[in-house]
Amino acid sequence: MDEPIYDVAHLGHLELLTDQPEKSLNFFVNILGLTESGREGDSVYLRAWDDYEVHTLKLTASKTTGMAHVGYRTASAAALARRLAAIEAMGCGIGWTDGDLGHGRSYRFRSPDGHVFELYYDTKKYVAPPAERPALKNIAQRYHGRGVAVRRIDHFNLLASDVSPMRDFMIGALGSRVTEQIVLDDGTLAGCWFTINNKTYDMAVTRDHSGARGRFHHITYATDHRDDVLRAADIFLENGVFIETGPHKHAIQGTFFLYVYEPAGNRVEVANAGARLILQPDWEPISWTEADRRKGQAWGLKTIESFHTHGTPPVRAGK
Amino acid sequence: MDEPIYDVAHLGHLELLTDQPEKSLNFFVNILGLTESGREGDSVYLRAWDDYEVHTLKLTASKTTGMAHVGYRTASAAALARRLAAIEAMGCGIGWTDGDLGHGRSYRFRSPDGHVFELYYDTKKYVAPPAERPALKNIAQRYHGRGVAVRRIDHFNLLASDVSPMRDFMIGALGSRVTEQIVLDDGTLAGCWFTINNKTYDMAVTRDHSGARGRFHHITYATDHRDDVLRAADIFLENGVFIETGPHKHAIQGTFFLYVYEPAGNRVEVANAGARLILQPDWEPISWTEADRRKGQAWGLKTIESFHTHGTPPVRAGK
Amino acid sequence: MDEPIYDVAHLGHLELLTDQPEKSLNFFVNILGLTESGREGDSVYLRAWDDYEVHTLKLTASKTTGMAHVGYRTASAAALARRLAAIEAMGCGIGWTDGDLGHGRSYRFRSPDGHVFELYYDTKKYVAPPAERPALKNIAQRYHGRGVAVRRIDHFNLLASDVSPMRDFMIGALGSRVTEQIVLDDGTLAGCWFTINNKTYDMAVTRDHSGARGRFHHITYATDHRDDVLRAADIFLENGVFIETGPHKHAIQGTFFLYVYEPAGNRVEVANAGARLILQPDWEPISWTEADRRKGQAWGLKTIESFHTHGTPPVRAGK
Amino acid sequence: MDEPIYDVAHLGHLELLTDQPEKSLNFFVNILGLTESGREGDSVYLRAWDDYEVHTLKLTASKTTGMAHVGYRTASAAALARRLAAIEAMGCGIGWTDGDLGHGRSYRFRSPDGHVFELYYDTKKYVAPPAERPALKNIAQRYHGRGVAVRRIDHFNLLASDVSPMRDFMIGALGSRVTEQIVLDDGTLAGCWFTINNKTYDMAVTRDHSGARGRFHHITYATDHRDDVLRAADIFLENGVFIETGPHKHAIQGTFFLYVYEPAGNRVEVANAGARLILQPDWEPISWTEADRRKGQAWGLKTIESFHTHGTPPVRAGK
Repeated sequence: MDEPIYDVAHLGHLELLTDQPEKSLNFFVNILGLTESGREGDSVYLRAWDDYEVHTLKLTASKTTGMAHVGYRTASAAALARRLAAIEAMGCGIGWTDGDLGHGRSYRFRSPDGHVFELYYDTKKYVAPPAERPALKNIAQRYHGRGVAVRRIDHFNLLASDVSPMRDFMIGALGSRVTEQIVLDDGTLAGCWFTINNKTYDMAVTRDHSGARGRFHHITYATDHRDDVLRAADIFLENGVFIETGPHKHAIQGTFFLYVYEPAGNRVEVANAGARLILQPDWEPISWTEADRRKGQAWGLKTIESFHTHGTPPVRAGK
Repeated sequence: MDEPIYDVAHLGHLELLTDQPEKSLNFFVNILGLTESGREGDSVYLRAWDDYEVHTLKLTASKTTGMAHVGYRTASAAALARRLAAIEAMGCGIGWTDGDLGHGRSYRFRSPDGHVFELYYDTKKYVAPPAERPALKNIAQRYHGRGVAVRRIDHFNLLASDVSPMRDFMIGALGSRVTEQIVLDDGTLAGCWFTINNKTYDMAVTRDHSGARGRFHHITYATDHRDDVLRAADIFLENGVFIETGPHKHAIQGTFFLYVYEPAGNRVEVANAGARLILQPDWEPISWTEADRRKGQAWGLKTIESFHTHGTPPVRAGK
Repeated sequence: MDEPIYDVAHLGHLELLTDQPEKSLNFFVNILGLTESGREGDSVYLRAWDDYEVHTLKLTASKTTGMAHVGYRTASAAALARRLAAIEAMGCGIGWTDGDLGHGRSYRFRSPDGHVFELYYDTKKYVAPPAERPALKNIAQRYHGRGVAVRRIDHFNLLASDVSPMRDFMIGALGSRVTEQIVLDDGTLAGCWFTINNKTYDMAVTRDHSGARGRFHHITYATDHRDDVLRAADIFLENGVFIETGPHKHAIQGTFFLYVYEPAGNRVEVANAGARLILQPDWEPISWTEADRRKGQAWGLKTIESFHTHGTPPVRAGK
Repeated sequence: MDEPIYDVAHLGHLELLTDQPEKSLNFFVNILGLTESGREGDSVYLRAWDDYEVHTLKLTASKTTGMAHVGYRTASAAALARRLAAIEAMGCGIGWTDGDLGHGRSYRFRSPDGHVFELYYDTKKYVAPPAERPALKNIAQRYHGRGVAVRRIDHFNLLASDVSPMRDFMIGALGSRVTEQIVLDDGTLAGCWFTINNKTYDMAVTRDHSGARGRFHHITYATDHRDDVLRAADIFLENGVFIETGPHKHAIQGTFFLYVYEPAGNRVEVANAGARLILQPDWEPISWTEADRRKGQAWGLKTIESFHTHGTPPVRAGK
């Protein structure tokens, strides 16, 4: 058996597009509880209080919505070189950037469905200004308690016209491992969950029922505790944020979840995984069948229909 | 900068000695909520409901108490070979075992303070008997809800007459990284926390104020949620288990903790780390000073005096 | 303004019928976590760990299901006499019983829809046998941690062919106050929540869409904390108990809820009200409109259809 | 047996004095999460989000600290008249006030230790301005999520040079019931907990070890859930608020607690009682002995020494 690949350390950040930049920024800062750590051009850089890098969300004003790109940080400069070689061999490379406000140069490449990824090792660590210094020196920023006050970026979910090529791409380009998957009765892969470290997943791909390509499903920030998700529901309710579904516990991965739409329509999840980790180096993917899925989520809640159709950007009529 | 070492996948199990085998077994099964998965000789094999291996605790009847050995699982057979080479070069190797009820052959070696470690790759995965099959296929065993019903093994803590050599040993033998440490005003290392994966720590070493060598401080099982620790306190209270300190939140590592003594005197912790993980590949150790420590735990609880003196086996008078 | 009536102290107990007596008993004892405190004839007497009386649930083997009767305890013997006078004046009295295993003589009367109520003052307080004695002397029985381990009886919900007469009955017979209600666009009362103390409600009546009379909707036990409701969901899941809806937060009364069916089909809720109490002596009923109800529960979950139709006993075909 | 007295509905408000008015106000509004609902003279009126009256805390700038007075609301105008008669018969009456910004006229009287009490029935109910209107119509104000965001006033604790006369006073003047008490080995009453409704206690009196008279121990606001108390600890920590003790669970009354000092030195508790209520009309007081108290709080935490000495105003040297 091959050895696991540990070249990629963790999910770094997402760049999301919004056509309601002021409202979206208010949502992420005052309701979700991210902190602004920089601005450049049409973008605002945001972070959760225990993210160690300058940003985990780049929010960019645009005519549309969805994900502009996603970045992962490698375990070392040498690991980045190894990944670059693998990606170039796959023929999906785009090329180097000069870096961004929040990190050094990065190598960009494209998923089979058209999503833009990048890998980088050089990064900028967040240094808390005096007003944000934590009482305990082992967290990145003070627990400010503002809004949902999520702790750190957790994972993201893409939609794809075809899930199988995305699976091969994640394994080949990043060295990701499949932890769970949905296999339909005809053998089609309808969803796939990946990890590149001990988190149970940092990325998921699910089938876009609209048939569109390259769309975005959701970004997830982790709350420190499960009860923070329940508290988030009250905060969303009182602030007029559209709650799509939850709080409830996923059957797949067992995550306690709550889904909302930020003002521009991008789906945002707050979630807590409990003490679940994938520590086993030879973990075998868990496969869920159509019969399994008909049971709904862990405690019986039916999967909401919009989960299969709502993505960003929206699908235009006639497309 | 060197690349991180990912040869060791995770902490596997501890073998604890008890001179009260029936009472200890009752504690671990009915109060802490572990499940018996085998017996051999004087030993009972135990596991938490989401441990994927046959056992994470081997409880062995003995004339004394403390830790007989600790096992870590490597990421692959090749990784085991690499570690063995490193350990032999360090001159602390003991040699191969034929394996145990719960795993295949292992390589044993000794810490500078005399604690016995082993590394293994071949293991036995737990297959739940019908009565223990979970409703959801992505957990190892059903959530039985018995006693504290801890989810998985988390970490352990050793006492050492001198912490510095233990730090070098953990880095050299396992490839562990130091995540946090206590450095006294005279530069002495008084405590050190290590991880070999994305957990914030899987092992800690603290100074034995008795001057004894090779003793054991505690084993920790993780509850799925923080509120399970509070519930555990009520369970321990109602069952007459000695509560040493907690529930409270550690300043170091931020873990929500509760410490008790099992009937034979071995210290057991139930804990929850929240959503905290060490994902950063170039994490720099956090150092706590004497002044920091005088502030007590996160919310001000003074560190209990017995934390520096109570270990197993007990120190004999005159020693 | 009239003074509030404080004659009735609290909801005492329900007698539920089951045509699956062994399975129902196993549910209430091993899954919900009640404790058996007596047996007599076809009945088993059950209590939650902090109920102060001998029983709060009398489970009686029968050919059918539903509620046989409900008992409330008065604040004093004199208060009982005052209520009796009021009830006799209403013309709905049945007469005195000789008492039951769990309490002294009681006065029975009938609701407009045919449900049997009783009032009593003389009661039998639970005296914990040695194995059930709590560590702290201010709770009635030890926190045993078995199953969901609910803390105390909370409330019950009846179905009625017409809600308005039930409202007048509760106000007239018990001196209950209406805390919340659903008023349809045509002015019909579709649901009504009552309290006779500082609890937000101890009884609810909702309209039976089947048109049947005198049926039972659910009994509710309170968990000590909200997280116990989430834990209950896992326990129900692993024990094959049918989860109807939840966990979620009610819009009406704000209770965090979870509904299941015990093996004979009687609906059981576990719930937590947070710190909500009705302390205000001149509380004015909150009215919910059809438009309000279309928003679903507090965080948007749609009210499940079976909530309007499933009651016990079941409605026979052709009836 | 006499019938219980239900003349007093609930604890209404406290007036606290502060010699650090700006800092105290910032604490109560931005850290504890109360909302300002009025100002008059040197006083600011404050309320928790589910308090139904205009205020539950009147914070008054002063040269000293401690409690200026405490108000209880009666169940009716007639009940107020009955209490007045009882109080006048006891000889501790002061006389009528013209009312306050937050309520109508009140009758004041004095405790044996000199604390000022008042009873009122006419009150002013809080009407939320548009920005504070809740999403659900059954709570008084939106859940704003600011700071600890406590839900409602819960209870208060006075110090007294002699506890026994205070007990007789509470029973005689308010009709309170004793729910728990500390009786020393020599028969002296060292602490006493009272309720006038179904809450487990709304007032406590404990012995002032300094020998001073008429001092104040603490005011308590209830969080909606127990986990809010843990979250409060992080908020206090990050805002430099002095944490005296907790979070932990009281042996007496079983409340989950956390004590801090607001900037002027008045002690403030945030607490959660779980689902515990005193519904039993013939509840017999629970007595705790010196031996009981030596066991510490519920899970073994020793009662902090300052609990017996720190009160407001501070005791002057030489007094």
